[in-house]
Amino acid sequence: MVRLIKFQGLLIVLFSFAGFYSANCQSAPVSDLSKDCISCHVSATPAIVADWKRSRHASISPAEALKRPEKQRRVSAENVPEKLASVVVGCAECHTMNPDSHKDTFEHNDQQTHLTVTPKDCSTCHPIEAAQFDKNLMSHAVGNLANNPLYRSLMKSINGIQSFKNMKTTLAEPDEKTTEDSCWSCHGAALQVKGLEPRSTDFGDMKFPVLSGWPNQGVGRLNTDGSKGSCSACHSRHQFAIQLARKPYACSRCHKGPDVPAYQSYSVSLHGNLFESMYGEWNFTEVPWTVGKDLTGPTCAVCHASLLVSSEGEVIAQRTHQMNDRLPWRIFGAIYAYPHSKSPDTSTIKNKDGMPLPTTLSGELAAEFLINRGEQEKRRDTLQKVCLSCHARDWVSGHWERFENTIKKSNGMTLTATQILTKAWDEKVADKTESIFDEAIEKQWVEQWLFYANSTRFASAMMGTDFGVFANGRWFMSKNIQDMLDRLKFLLRTKGKRP
Amino acid sequence: MVRLIKFQGLLIVLFSFAGFYSANCQSAPVSDLSKDCISCHVSATPAIVADWKRSRHASISPAEALKRPEKQRRVSAENVPEKLASVVVGCAECHTMNPDSHKDTFEHNDQQTHLTVTPKDCSTCHPIEAAQFDKNLMSHAVGNLANNPLYRSLMKSINGIQSFKNMKTTLAEPDEKTTEDSCWSCHGAALQVKGLEPRSTDFGDMKFPVLSGWPNQGVGRLNTDGSKGSCSACHSRHQFAIQLARKPYACSRCHKGPDVPAYQSYSVSLHGNLFESMYGEWNFTEVPWTVGKDLTGPTCAVCHASLLVSSEGEVIAQRTHQMNDRLPWRIFGAIYAYPHSKSPDTSTIKNKDGMPLPTTLSGELAAEFLINRGEQEKRRDTLQKVCLSCHARDWVSGHWERFENTIKKSNGMTLTATQILTKAWDEKVADKTESIFDEAIEKQWVEQWLFYANSTRFASAMMGTDFGVFANGRWFMSKNIQDMLDRLKFLLRTKGKRP
Amino acid sequence: MVRLIKFQGLLIVLFSFAGFYSANCQSAPVSDLSKDCISCHVSATPAIVADWKRSRHASISPAEALKRPEKQRRVSAENVPEKLASVVVGCAECHTMNPDSHKDTFEHNDQQTHLTVTPKDCSTCHPIEAAQFDKNLMSHAVGNLANNPLYRSLMKSINGIQSFKNMKTTLAEPDEKTTEDSCWSCHGAALQVKGLEPRSTDFGDMKFPVLSGWPNQGVGRLNTDGSKGSCSACHSRHQFAIQLARKPYACSRCHKGPDVPAYQSYSVSLHGNLFESMYGEWNFTEVPWTVGKDLTGPTCAVCHASLLVSSEGEVIAQRTHQMNDRLPWRIFGAIYAYPHSKSPDTSTIKNKDGMPLPTTLSGELAAEFLINRGEQEKRRDTLQKVCLSCHARDWVSGHWERFENTIKKSNGMTLTATQILTKAWDEKVADKTESIFDEAIEKQWVEQWLFYANSTRFASAMMGTDFGVFANGRWFMSKNIQDMLDRLKFLLRTKGKRP
Repeated sequence: MVRLIKFQGLLIVLFSFAGFYSANCQSAPVSDLSKDCISCHVSATPAIVADWKRSRHASISPAEALKRPEKQRRVSAENVPEKLASVVVGCAECHTMNPDSHKDTFEHNDQQTHLTVTPKDCSTCHPIEAAQFDKNLMSHAVGNLANNPLYRSLMKSINGIQSFKNMKTTLAEPDEKTTEDSCWSCHGAALQVKGLEPRSTDFGDMKFPVLSGWPNQGVGRLNTDGSKGSCSACHSRHQFAIQLARKPYACSRCHKGPDVPAYQSYSVSLHGNLFESMYGEWNFTEVPWTVGKDLTGPTCAVCHASLLVSSEGEVIAQRTHQMNDRLPWRIFGAIYAYPHSKSPDTSTIKNKDGMPLPTTLSGELAAEFLINRGEQEKRRDTLQKVCLSCHARDWVSGHWERFENTIKKSNGMTLTATQILTKAWDEKVADKTESIFDEAIEKQWVEQWLFYANSTRFASAMMGTDFGVFANGRWFMSKNIQDMLDRLKFLLRTKGKRP
Repeated sequence: MVRLIKFQGLLIVLFSFAGFYSANCQSAPVSDLSKDCISCHVSATPAIVADWKRSRHASISPAEALKRPEKQRRVSAENVPEKLASVVVGCAECHTMNPDSHKDTFEHNDQQTHLTVTPKDCSTCHPIEAAQFDKNLMSHAVGNLANNPLYRSLMKSINGIQSFKNMKTTLAEPDEKTTEDSCWSCHGAALQVKGLEPRSTDFGDMKFPVLSGWPNQGVGRLNTDGSKGSCSACHSRHQFAIQLARKPYACSRCHKGPDVPAYQSYSVSLHGNLFESMYGEWNFTEVPWTVGKDLTGPTCAVCHASLLVSSEGEVIAQRTHQMNDRLPWRIFGAIYAYPHSKSPDTSTIKNKDGMPLPTTLSGELAAEFLINRGEQEKRRDTLQKVCLSCHARDWVSGHWERFENTIKKSNGMTLTATQILTKAWDEKVADKTESIFDEAIEKQWVEQWLFYANSTRFASAMMGTDFGVFANGRWFMSKNIQDMLDRLKFLLRTKGKRP
Repeated sequence: MVRLIKFQGLLIVLFSFAGFYSANCQSAPVSDLSKDCISCHVSATPAIVADWKRSRHASISPAEALKRPEKQRRVSAENVPEKLASVVVGCAECHTMNPDSHKDTFEHNDQQTHLTVTPKDCSTCHPIEAAQFDKNLMSHAVGNLANNPLYRSLMKSINGIQSFKNMKTTLAEPDEKTTEDSCWSCHGAALQVKGLEPRSTDFGDMKFPVLSGWPNQGVGRLNTDGSKGSCSACHSRHQFAIQLARKPYACSRCHKGPDVPAYQSYSVSLHGNLFESMYGEWNFTEVPWTVGKDLTGPTCAVCHASLLVSSEGEVIAQRTHQMNDRLPWRIFGAIYAYPHSKSPDTSTIKNKDGMPLPTTLSGELAAEFLINRGEQEKRRDTLQKVCLSCHARDWVSGHWERFENTIKKSNGMTLTATQILTKAWDEKVADKTESIFDEAIEKQWVEQWLFYANSTRFASAMMGTDFGVFANGRWFMSKNIQDMLDRLKFLLRTKGKRP
């Protein structure tokens, strides 16, 4: 009988264990305003409310968070405004913050409410992260495409509808919804308020703002308060679970295609292998993250973002939301790999031929816009401190030397492809005047660097083995050049020229 | 000492906990017939028996199942035949059911036993699911290929062995084993009893039926009892675990290739990201499935099949095994996306040019065979009720508008590709008389819609970002048209014509 | 109060449970030498030490391991040298073993230490596994490439930098770092000691050996002690977790690309589906591995490597590190699928035309180098014993017949592609004298067998459905032949010949 009672106690513990970290140890209250929101939204959008209830935001107030030892803190503000400090972070705390700066603010249940929550709003409690993110290339992901005429022409060549007549194709300007569904989906849309729309709801007739570009949580979103970015691109809503940003799937949403196969390379590397096989035994919620204790292999966040400490508490890497302060090379997104740009706004770069690119078409660096060798070495050393917690120096140095050799050699293969294309332009069997991206041989050339050279480099960066050879790597670099050469010959012959 | 005893008790609970739901709370008995089966099969096919023991079938009788509150029930029969009702669902209950209707019934251990178990058999306890599945396109997956002469010619062009002589290739009719290994693997094979075969076993000499098309668990399998389909296509055997059908991997078995990249699009979407990162905290066995409590993001089943309720018990979506009652558009499997067909048997559709297709080659709908706008809206609303449990109306409407724009634009790109191919046919540099699928330029055209246009749409449907651009989406739609144009020119030139 | 104490006890158990298997039940001591290593390395490479602490090596001595019942043993030595037997397997036990045979041995903290640990070192406790692995093709993965002039020319065609001038490309010899970053990454590098390098460390100035080819853990690595292979290719370091080798991700590191898509085929098969959905309920650490109890579906290791028993303890399959003793056919890596070679060293094979290949270019077997039909049947039966624990005989036989049909038919399609290429060579529009791998049409031909025919076969082997049709399978086999035919015509026309 006593035994049974004990067992019941046990089962209760077991069943409540899953919820232990999430909502059950709540001590700070939900604000009256947020209670109001929840009273309707628990039935209007039940899963949003339920998701939020599992969040850390729902279980701890900023004031309590500020009392934690510094390294364990997830808030970086020194102080939080008084009216926010003693309640948990609920609906109203975020969606009614800074109402005057938000063009999507509207009256909703007597409150000045906005649909979108932005890095500027989040910076109330997380100012250091917001400031770091402002230096992150990703926060400029819209302008870096839209303000670069060359990349705009690449977008047009992909998204524009082609039509066929008299043995010729014509390329139309892409419509905005198509670009939202493609480029802006990762890069971020430019949100604009188009007016208010009446709508009948279960709670009566109401008016809601209409936003062009919505829905969108692209990483560089242009917000209605003038800020850039969307924290939910990586942190999702409304649980904002740290384990989500720390697992590689978050990054894979935008970094999986052949143009930026970071996740693919990772998943076939030994690092990815360790993660997939062993992560059930790791701890993804602890802050700071202790190498060897909380995890026994890296995820994307480990190398590129998280605050890492050794089991003795020594800081191995400071948390960063800039990310490329741990990265000397930009290995994708341009014709050649190049040292990172000084500014996260790359649209102002001009190469020596006046093109908005970090290199010339033949690979010469636009050096004044790029970090120098000293800065590269500093960033490399910051990254390698992470490597060195699991690998000896000889391992790390040997790997890095090989990686930089691959950068050089893959750039070399791109140069060869560029020379073949240049010959096609010179011979007038391809035309670069309107666009350098819209004909078949030009698109082959784009794949040379956008898919194959960068895949080779990503694989090399993560010792990703087969991926860098046959799964979009060297095999394709070498084949594509031969394909381009054949095509050049066929084009010449078709135009009646002798190849 | 007392402490130690307690700890032992604890450990016992912990170790037996994993088995708690499966077999340990069994109250109904195993039938005598099934006991007989198990007595030999526990050594003949030990893992089948072990797998079944973990199943719900092995731990609860239909009579007990019928006593559960309606929404929690997994059986949909009002009554179950008496001899089945009070025993658990064991080997004999399924494999000796309806012996007369099964052509693969044979005498085995003195029982009239059949190898295959079919939707008709399962409908004894699950009649509503079987009736719904009968309206599912998937249950007609064999005939929808085999009874459509155009699709038969596509199958031949893929599966037939080609030979080369005098600068020409010849295409042979594919052998049946090849088609079983390819198309029929997902679509389902036509099972036919070829006779009985003697075999020596550890239990003496026996005779077993020989089935052509076997093994097969394709979703539209033509069974020896005249029924269509295989429940194990999604529910697997012999554990029939509900968590299996609810996780996206079940669907990925047939919906992962470039022809139907549902899983790929999902896995790079934020939905897939949420699943992969968080599913360890979800509950995949609870019925009904409570949004926000059991799960905080969707899997395939959530949007397309499962019974969903809110935390207040309100039904968000009724369980369906028809699935396209939540789907207004068919976005893959034909040249253009189109409103779903009225009948799950698509082989009877004729377009206005007399072809067995839901549209003409230029995209005009065979409207009389397809659902109308009203029905499309009804299905859209059913689906959107799921979206609306996690997203506000503005989010859902904005997303849907973008998705329908993508349907239209991707259809437009297919039309352009079709016009280039038509030019090739008109100029006699390609030949449509024998097959429209067997030459290189025709195969390029097939990829335009079968791989690229549909991938673009799947990505759009799930806000799948990069997948819809560079990982088989718009980049390839735009490039393929230029490739086709170049090939058309080279073909013309090769034939001595002026491009 | 009493209740609270009980609960605390409970929570302690719960929290320590995760660590239960790893380090907490340690009874044997760490050797003094290893303690010395750890005293510095706990801060020099903290995660290596932490990872090792989680390992079985760190918690049990060889002497204790030898006392386990035979089937439960992971050591296969009859005796272990006395000085190793009674301490756990720590740093020094491996890194100072056999110092005289290691050319990378150097004086480190007064010990003769080597960087690398090799199969020869591991064979001290695991001699049977090492001997089996010696018969594994993988242990010869370097020589099988490097000593085969044809494969060397394939490597050059992939890794060599191409340059373009006067409408021609030139192919340079690849540099060694590139080959290490590609082929040798999986196959293994030839490690060579280049000398000693001084380095400043936190513990003073030291000298460390410099190894060319380092870092590398390719499966066939040529070690400085003359041995071949790297156990860490699959078992990783320094936790050497058995669950890692038993999950399919370990294999995916090298077996995922289109040249060897074992993991891809698996992951879309029902087997992979079962694994992904259900593995949370499986036990990956138990030895022996009990089918139906520890697992309810196969991983790579289940079918190809692990010791499997039934729930009644009967051995279903003996552990193997040779692996192809369960495999009758080699379905990838050569132009045609063929019966496995008798020797794991395939570089000595000569076909009847004098080429170092298991078949002629037209598919005729170099039979004297290959296993005969009897041996094939023996290996097939060994493999099928695994299948038969979950599937009835009719299922297994039907599957196998289909698989062997697919081997034959995919070989047939390769022959057709070879005939088209031969025509190109005969007509002098392609040149086989320097290399048969370096021109565009030759590379198309390579893809026919290296990517498409083998993908079709892998999919067939695992009933991998869609993968064998549209995701690199039959669709591409059929399309590629038409593409090659068109290219042949264009090449002829470009050379002024009549196609």
